[in-house]
Amino acid sequence: MQFHHHGYVSTDPRMQAPAGVGLNRPEELPEKVDVLIVGTGPAGMITAAQLSQFPSITTRIIERRGGRLAIGQADGIQARSVETFQAFGFAERIIAEAYRITEMAFWKPDPTDPTRIIRTARAVDDPTGISEFPHLIVNQARVLDYFADVMANSPTRMKPDYGYEFLGLEVGEGEYPVTVRLTHTTGALEGEGRIVHAKYVVGADGARSGVRHAIGCTMAGDQAFHAWGVMDVLAVTDFPDIRTKCAIQSEAGSILHIPREGGYLFRMYVDLGEVAADNKGAIRSTTIEEIIAKANDILHPYTLDVKNVAWHSVYEVAHRLTDRFDDVVPEDLGSRTPRVFITGDACHTHSAKAGQGMNVSMQDGFNLGWKLAHVLDGRSPESLLSTYSAERQVVAKNLIEFDKEWSTLMARKPEELSDPAELETFYTSTAEFPAGFMTQYARSMVIGEATHEALAVGFPLGKRFKSAPVVRVADANPVQLGHHHRADGRWRLYAFADAAAAGAASGVADWAEWLRTSPDSPLLVHTPKDTDVDSVFDVKVIYQQAHTAIDIARVPDTFLPRVGPFELIDYEKVYATDPLHDIFDLRGIDRGGAVVVVRPDQYVANVLPLSATDELAAFFRPILFAR
Amino acid sequence: MQFHHHGYVSTDPRMQAPAGVGLNRPEELPEKVDVLIVGTGPAGMITAAQLSQFPSITTRIIERRGGRLAIGQADGIQARSVETFQAFGFAERIIAEAYRITEMAFWKPDPTDPTRIIRTARAVDDPTGISEFPHLIVNQARVLDYFADVMANSPTRMKPDYGYEFLGLEVGEGEYPVTVRLTHTTGALEGEGRIVHAKYVVGADGARSGVRHAIGCTMAGDQAFHAWGVMDVLAVTDFPDIRTKCAIQSEAGSILHIPREGGYLFRMYVDLGEVAADNKGAIRSTTIEEIIAKANDILHPYTLDVKNVAWHSVYEVAHRLTDRFDDVVPEDLGSRTPRVFITGDACHTHSAKAGQGMNVSMQDGFNLGWKLAHVLDGRSPESLLSTYSAERQVVAKNLIEFDKEWSTLMARKPEELSDPAELETFYTSTAEFPAGFMTQYARSMVIGEATHEALAVGFPLGKRFKSAPVVRVADANPVQLGHHHRADGRWRLYAFADAAAAGAASGVADWAEWLRTSPDSPLLVHTPKDTDVDSVFDVKVIYQQAHTAIDIARVPDTFLPRVGPFELIDYEKVYATDPLHDIFDLRGIDRGGAVVVVRPDQYVANVLPLSATDELAAFFRPILFAR
Repeated sequence: MQFHHHGYVSTDPRMQAPAGVGLNRPEELPEKVDVLIVGTGPAGMITAAQLSQFPSITTRIIERRGGRLAIGQADGIQARSVETFQAFGFAERIIAEAYRITEMAFWKPDPTDPTRIIRTARAVDDPTGISEFPHLIVNQARVLDYFADVMANSPTRMKPDYGYEFLGLEVGEGEYPVTVRLTHTTGALEGEGRIVHAKYVVGADGARSGVRHAIGCTMAGDQAFHAWGVMDVLAVTDFPDIRTKCAIQSEAGSILHIPREGGYLFRMYVDLGEVAADNKGAIRSTTIEEIIAKANDILHPYTLDVKNVAWHSVYEVAHRLTDRFDDVVPEDLGSRTPRVFITGDACHTHSAKAGQGMNVSMQDGFNLGWKLAHVLDGRSPESLLSTYSAERQVVAKNLIEFDKEWSTLMARKPEELSDPAELETFYTSTAEFPAGFMTQYARSMVIGEATHEALAVGFPLGKRFKSAPVVRVADANPVQLGHHHRADGRWRLYAFADAAAAGAASGVADWAEWLRTSPDSPLLVHTPKDTDVDSVFDVKVIYQQAHTAIDIARVPDTFLPRVGPFELIDYEKVYATDPLHDIFDLRGIDRGGAVVVVRPDQYVANVLPLSATDELAAFFRPILFAR
Repeated sequence: MQFHHHGYVSTDPRMQAPAGVGLNRPEELPEKVDVLIVGTGPAGMITAAQLSQFPSITTRIIERRGGRLAIGQADGIQARSVETFQAFGFAERIIAEAYRITEMAFWKPDPTDPTRIIRTARAVDDPTGISEFPHLIVNQARVLDYFADVMANSPTRMKPDYGYEFLGLEVGEGEYPVTVRLTHTTGALEGEGRIVHAKYVVGADGARSGVRHAIGCTMAGDQAFHAWGVMDVLAVTDFPDIRTKCAIQSEAGSILHIPREGGYLFRMYVDLGEVAADNKGAIRSTTIEEIIAKANDILHPYTLDVKNVAWHSVYEVAHRLTDRFDDVVPEDLGSRTPRVFITGDACHTHSAKAGQGMNVSMQDGFNLGWKLAHVLDGRSPESLLSTYSAERQVVAKNLIEFDKEWSTLMARKPEELSDPAELETFYTSTAEFPAGFMTQYARSMVIGEATHEALAVGFPLGKRFKSAPVVRVADANPVQLGHHHRADGRWRLYAFADAAAAGAASGVADWAEWLRTSPDSPLLVHTPKDTDVDSVFDVKVIYQQAHTAIDIARVPDTFLPRVGPFELIDYEKVYATDPLHDIFDLRGIDRGGAVVVVRPDQYVANVLPLSATDELAAFFRPILFAR
């Protein structure tokens, strides 16, 4: 965490100084906003938290409820989400309070007495070390709280506007082309209408999204719904795996069992089977007593004595996917750019079984947030916004296919499985997907050609930048390189040095000099004159040597920029190789050096040789304006 | 973190439900309190944070200033302090914002040109892995903020009472025998007197302690003072180790250089030499310009261009130690118990060079806090309070001796050192002391006889319980055993099992049965009837097997207690050995098993065989009342 460089910060350094629109933020929802986000779920809140970092942008996020979410809803947090929380600065706090999944148990009917269940397998959750971050379970309400903290501590001092329901919108012309109709849901003005004019609207308003409806998207997919009885309960049981995630299949049905934060609570998804669209009323009348009774039947010979029900619901869901993620209909593609976006459950609905919903929704918002910020902050052309739908539609499609396969397998009766171990084999062999790391964006204006990918095989283009250990030269601190990527809307340029020592003539020294001085350098072309040299690009160097062999006095100035009003030297951009965990070996980086370009949402955008300065300049020209 | 067992907790689980005196806490300082703490420095705040956990105890902490500390004062946080923060629940947050020391550099005059300094050595800060916690630097103000958060989140909803100055006290008779005279320092009542009646008073009021004066303690030690010019600054420099802790000795003087949190700020202690007691006025007039000029002289050939001074001070200190830590004069020892205590700088003053002050002060408070809580909560006799002075006076004496040696060495001119490497040799060879782990309390009513110490050689009696990795059986989570020790005033009984599997006849099974059922069992004798079975003792078992070889259904009920209003099973007391880091090997625990008793302040109080139930019962009889 870097601070104090604008003067001494006495209180919590996570609290940034107010600036721009945060200096005089109106308490009431204004008439005109840059971005109006509809819905305070995970997709909406991460978008808001990202946009809140930009003092020039007025973002407001509205919510139909009168206040924060208290109970229920999603709880699975994949490693990619924890990695994202790290970029927003609250990973260590949410890890401390969450349940951590390290194993999953599989229970099936005992072949010798199929009325009884027995544990048939235990699968380690991340046997290959896909991520240095854990797989967690914690109530969605806490995730939202932490994003609300990020917003409150941001320069714009953002907070949600509770008590507004979305009614409809029209996209017109002018500076604020989207006219949004709302109604007050609480307080003295309850039932009264309200108009807000926005440059952009983000619909994060869930499976029955009004924003989606307003822009004419259609949801395609299953006709039939699958129903689940979900309960968050405190109970006494003799079931031995009550603190382990379990897939339980018995003759009486199946349960997905999720231990929860705090050591006592757990959630069970009790399978209630397929329901026709016209029969949803009947299944919704399933009582908590019926859910508990069914759970007891499934767990036989074990029993569940429920002492307290924190929350329960009957949950019906179909696998469905929207045809597009924004308001640009296919015939207008290329002729106009989007003004309205949808994210999260508004785009994709599926079962809760793979624990993906909240996670994919947050990545929708993380993808969209920086792009909106780039356009509204005057960094990028509006065409950047078209990449959102293009990138995220594919991810949602893959998610739904994965979830279908997983939930079909889980719902199958044991005798229907071709191999008794099919379920656990699927679970472990596909671990990268549910952990959140299978996403790979295709070539686009923000993902380069894979021409030089061989220079850094551990950083595939379009996949998220996988961190590795390094040593910070100035203070000899062992750190994770990727963990210095904050959700601040900046691009990262990682210069992996060639073999020469710092100070000697070398490819990286030439590259650094070009970046610092060439009229073609992205740093000079795209960084506004009145901001710090690292305000758009965060440039870091990683030497092949150990930190004791690097003389910081001989490192090029490019990697020791002067920042802030006092023009202090930023020493946190120069890294050495940790001899015990050599990042060049771990990530397959060519010993001749390489430049790895990483997007603000942590995805690898380009890999280039140190000598390919023209290509680097050319890559950014369509993305960023000259300033 | 365990929660939800009294029902669902929707918001931050670190916020405990208000209870007892916290349900209707008066905003104004009341006339009668159980404990009055004078001073909101580290010693006072940790004592308050510990006492705040007890709903039955009214504690108030007063401060002369009108509000929180903003700048200046101590910044060194040894690993033992981070371990303590972990017990109070905020280690991960303060680590995230602090500077971490991993190396120290030593600079001396260049033998070929003694007007110039050169780096002569680099010492790794904790080469032997004394602790799993880091060595940090962060402003004291943030430490106090975190303790204030702990208090605010406690059942008693405590917060400091700012704007009161201590004038004097008298110890009399009755339920509230200490009469304390205060005066308002701020607001409408400024200058007006105020009387508070207290059962106990803690003087945490610094080097010029009024409480110490009031109880007639004398400070003995050096007559002469040593002066330092201290500055927290933002600067541009070509000194290459500006982000590394350094001891710099040059012909022009010496500097202790401390990089600070946030990546830019640093603190320099510039040696201003010895001053006679009657010459303090002159040295105090040293200006910041003079300190900066002297720093530049010392750093030659490097220069320091100070851009912003966050804080500076001229600091004079003598090595001095109080004769006792409470109000019981030697002739009354044994005939009365203390009513007034002093902690921290009120007891011991010394240089800042070893970075010990704040750390030792916090351990004073941690030692005293649980003892006061035990007496006021009706758990223990008042005689327990006499162990505070006995234990901490020795620690302070050792501290002053260590600091004298270290500061003498640092102040010595290079030509006066017998060995050029004397300084760095001393630094690394004594690393356990400054890390905070050399403290070893002597045999007393709260430290047992070392009769059975051979059963667990890695847990020496009187030293703090050194954590080690284990695996929690119920959820297969790899955890640090010691990190489940919260600062909640409870005793820990760690039952290291003999070799038999859970469920088989074994020493640990017999011990568990005795603890659960015997009329002599400390659990039955000392736990109040209307509280949870683990309210006084937190009993954990560590099996020799891996977690997959332990059937939790066969673990004795003693280790799976029913807690809270719903009598839920606490699954977080049963541990397995991590095959990669076997705790039995790491801590030298006898394979026949052992019981390790740990005090509420994390010190090992006793080591006993599983069979020594009579000794275990006898150990607690003088400490805890029958309930």
